[in-house]
Amino acid sequence: MTQLNENYLKLQGSYLFSTIAKRVNAYKEAHPDKNVISLGIGDVSQPLVPAVVEALHRASDEMGEQTTFRGYGPEQGYAFLREAVVAHDYHAHNIDLPADAVFISDGAKSDVANFQELFSSTAKVALQNPVYPVYLDTNVMAGRTSAFENGQYGNVIYLPCTEENRFIPQVPDVHADIIYLCSPNNPTGAAMTKEELQKWVDYAREHKSIILYDSAYEAYITQPGVVHSIYEISGAEEVAVEFRSFSKTAGFTGTRCAYTVVPKTVFVYDQQGNSYNLNALWLRRQTTKFNGVPYIVQRAAEAVFSTEGQQQIKRVIAGYMQNAQTILQALTHSGLTAYGGVNAPYIWLKTPRQLKSWDLFDKLLTEAQVVGTPGVGFGSCGEGFFRLTAFNTLPLTQQAAQRISTLKF
Amino acid sequence: MTQLNENYLKLQGSYLFSTIAKRVNAYKEAHPDKNVISLGIGDVSQPLVPAVVEALHRASDEMGEQTTFRGYGPEQGYAFLREAVVAHDYHAHNIDLPADAVFISDGAKSDVANFQELFSSTAKVALQNPVYPVYLDTNVMAGRTSAFENGQYGNVIYLPCTEENRFIPQVPDVHADIIYLCSPNNPTGAAMTKEELQKWVDYAREHKSIILYDSAYEAYITQPGVVHSIYEISGAEEVAVEFRSFSKTAGFTGTRCAYTVVPKTVFVYDQQGNSYNLNALWLRRQTTKFNGVPYIVQRAAEAVFSTEGQQQIKRVIAGYMQNAQTILQALTHSGLTAYGGVNAPYIWLKTPRQLKSWDLFDKLLTEAQVVGTPGVGFGSCGEGFFRLTAFNTLPLTQQAAQRISTLKF
Repeated sequence: MTQLNENYLKLQGSYLFSTIAKRVNAYKEAHPDKNVISLGIGDVSQPLVPAVVEALHRASDEMGEQTTFRGYGPEQGYAFLREAVVAHDYHAHNIDLPADAVFISDGAKSDVANFQELFSSTAKVALQNPVYPVYLDTNVMAGRTSAFENGQYGNVIYLPCTEENRFIPQVPDVHADIIYLCSPNNPTGAAMTKEELQKWVDYAREHKSIILYDSAYEAYITQPGVVHSIYEISGAEEVAVEFRSFSKTAGFTGTRCAYTVVPKTVFVYDQQGNSYNLNALWLRRQTTKFNGVPYIVQRAAEAVFSTEGQQQIKRVIAGYMQNAQTILQALTHSGLTAYGGVNAPYIWLKTPRQLKSWDLFDKLLTEAQVVGTPGVGFGSCGEGFFRLTAFNTLPLTQQAAQRISTLKF
Repeated sequence: MTQLNENYLKLQGSYLFSTIAKRVNAYKEAHPDKNVISLGIGDVSQPLVPAVVEALHRASDEMGEQTTFRGYGPEQGYAFLREAVVAHDYHAHNIDLPADAVFISDGAKSDVANFQELFSSTAKVALQNPVYPVYLDTNVMAGRTSAFENGQYGNVIYLPCTEENRFIPQVPDVHADIIYLCSPNNPTGAAMTKEELQKWVDYAREHKSIILYDSAYEAYITQPGVVHSIYEISGAEEVAVEFRSFSKTAGFTGTRCAYTVVPKTVFVYDQQGNSYNLNALWLRRQTTKFNGVPYIVQRAAEAVFSTEGQQQIKRVIAGYMQNAQTILQALTHSGLTAYGGVNAPYIWLKTPRQLKSWDLFDKLLTEAQVVGTPGVGFGSCGEGFFRLTAFNTLPLTQQAAQRISTLKF
C-alpha cells in the first residue's frame, strides 16, 4: 500500500486564487448581464512589447533551421542571458556579481517553491503575515510545520505586518533558519528601506540564517531610499538569495522566465558544523530536476534589456502605476484608508467599519462587480484588509474606481 | 545556523552528463585539430518542423496584441492542448482518458523528478538497473535511500536488466511502493511487450503500488506487440502514472514541453488506510509550485498533432531510426554485440573482451573521436555496456559508424 506524503493533509483548502475564481464564476453564471472587472489576481493585461515579440520571431526562425537549432541548453540558463542580467540589473547599480551566481528559471514561483528543498526538514521558517501563500504552503508540504490550529500552522515564526509597523516585518527575538522577505511586498505594497533591511541582514549574519528575498516587483519602485536589490545591503552576499522575475517587469506571466541569484559566498551547514556552498547545492538541484527555459523565451528575456526593450517596458510600468494612482484617489475620495500603490502595483485597502475581508469581497463583487483579493487569504494579519492590483487596463481600472467610489460603506 | 538537507551529501559525484562533457572538453582542448562526433547525450539534432515553427510565429504575434495577449494560463495546461493530447495519443488508440487526467509541463525530467514528492518519505522505491539517473537521484535527495555502499544505495530495490532477461525488469518477490519503469528504455533500448507489462500491473494492483511509467520514447516503436501506453494494459488505470514528452517526439529538447497522465482512479493511502486521489494531490502540487508552460510553447506542441505536423515529425523520426540501423550495422560488421535500436533511439553495445565501460569511452574518444555514454554511469548492471544514440545527423552518424568499424578490439 503506497502511502502519501501526509504533510499534504495539513494544507488548508484549495489555493486562494482558485477559490476566488470559483466564486467569481458562480456570480457570472448567475448574472450573465453583469460586467465584472478584476482587480484581483496579480496578472498583467498589457501585451508583450515589440522588442520582445521581435526576439521571439527571430529565435523561432533559428529553431527551424538546422544550423541554428538549439537542443538542450544549460539547466541554469544560457550565458547570454545570465550576462545580460548581471550587467543590467547588478553591475549597472554597482553590485558586483558573477554570471554564475544567476540561475535562469521558468518562474519565481517555481524557484521560491523549490528552494526550501535544500534545507533540513527541521529548519525553522520565518515569514511575513500576510504572506504570498506559496512560501508557506511549500514548507507545509515539506513537513516543516505542525498542524493548522487557530488560524496558524505550528512551528512557524509569523512576522506580523500591520498598520502599527507600516507593514514592515520586524526582526524576531527567537532564532529563525530560513527567512522569507518580499519587498516591494505582495500583498501589502510596502517596500523596505536600506535601514530596515540592514537589520535583517545583520540578524541573518548573527544567526547564520538564510534570507530568501523576493524582489519580483522591484521595477515598480518610484521612491528613493527603497531597496531594489538586497545586495545593496552590506553583508547580504553572505546570507541572501534573491528572486526576480520578468513576469511583472515585462509582462511574462504567460511567457515564463525568472531568475534566482545565489552568491557563492552563502553557506549552509551540516550537523557537525561543516559548511557547504549553497550555489553548488542549487546547481545540483537544478541539473537533476530541471531542464532549462526554452531558448526562444531566453532570447525574449534578453530583449527586455535592449535599449528599445527598456524604453518600451518602462512605458508599460508607468501605465500600471497610473492605474495605482487612479485606484488610490478613488479610495481616498470615498474616505477609505489605503496603503501601497507607490512602490508596488498593489494597493492594500483597509476595510471600512471593521468589515471582514471576505465580506468586502462579496460586497465589491455583488454591488460594484469588482473583484479583489481578501486580505485574510494571505494570513490572519490580512483580516480587515483587501488587495487591489494595478494590472488591469486603464479604461477598466478607471471604470472599477468609478464604481467603487459610488458605493456606500 | 541553517542546516542543509543532508540527503544531498549521499549523492555520488556530479551528474553523469556533466562528467562526460568535462572529459570531452578536456580532450578537445588538448586536440583542437580532431573532429569529435557525439553519439552521447540523448539530444536531438534536427530542427523544429515547419508546422511547429509556424505555430510559434502565430502565437508570438498573439502575445504582442492587446486583444489576444495571454497572461497566466492554467497551471495544468490549456484545454486546447490537453484535449489534443487525449484525442491523438489516447482516444485514437481506444484508450478512454478525460482531458483533466493530463497535466502539461516543461519536461518529463521535471515531472518524474517532482512526482515522488507526493509519497511518504518511507515509501520503498524499485527501479531498473541500469537506470536514467534522475529517478534515483531525486529519491536520494528526498531521503528514501540510505548511504551509497558497494556501488548501490541502501533501501532501494534494484531490478537488474541484463542480457539474461533481455533487459526486461522482472517482478520482485518483495514489496515495492513506487516502481519506475521506462519503456522503450533509456539506456538499454529494450521495450516491453503487453505480456511483460501485464505482470507489473498485476503486481502493483496486488501490492497497491504505484507504477511511474516513462514512455518518452514511445514514438520510436516499430514492432507490433510492444506497449505504446501503459493504459493498454488491463487494470493500469488503477495503479499507473504515465510520462510523455515532446522532446524526442518532436525535437522539443530546447523548447520544453511534456505531459503527465494521472487517472482519477489511482489512489494512495494514509497510515489509517484512508484513500486519496493521486490526481488531486498532483494538481495541488502543480498549482502551488508551478505556473504552467509558455502559451507559445503550448501552441507549438498543439501543432505537432496537426496533419502536417504528424507527417513532418514522422519523417524526422524515421531519419533517426535510419541512423540506428547505420550504427547497428557497423557494430555487427565489427563483430560486436549490440541491443536496442529497433524500438528506441538507443543502442546498447556490449563492450568486447569484458572491457570496462569507461575504458571503452576513452578508447572511442581517443581512437575514433566518437563520444558515447558509459553504461556503468546508469548503474552497476550497465558495467560492460555502452550507450550510443541515433540522434545525430545522418552524415555525422555515418562518419562515426565508419570510424568505429575501423577500430581493432
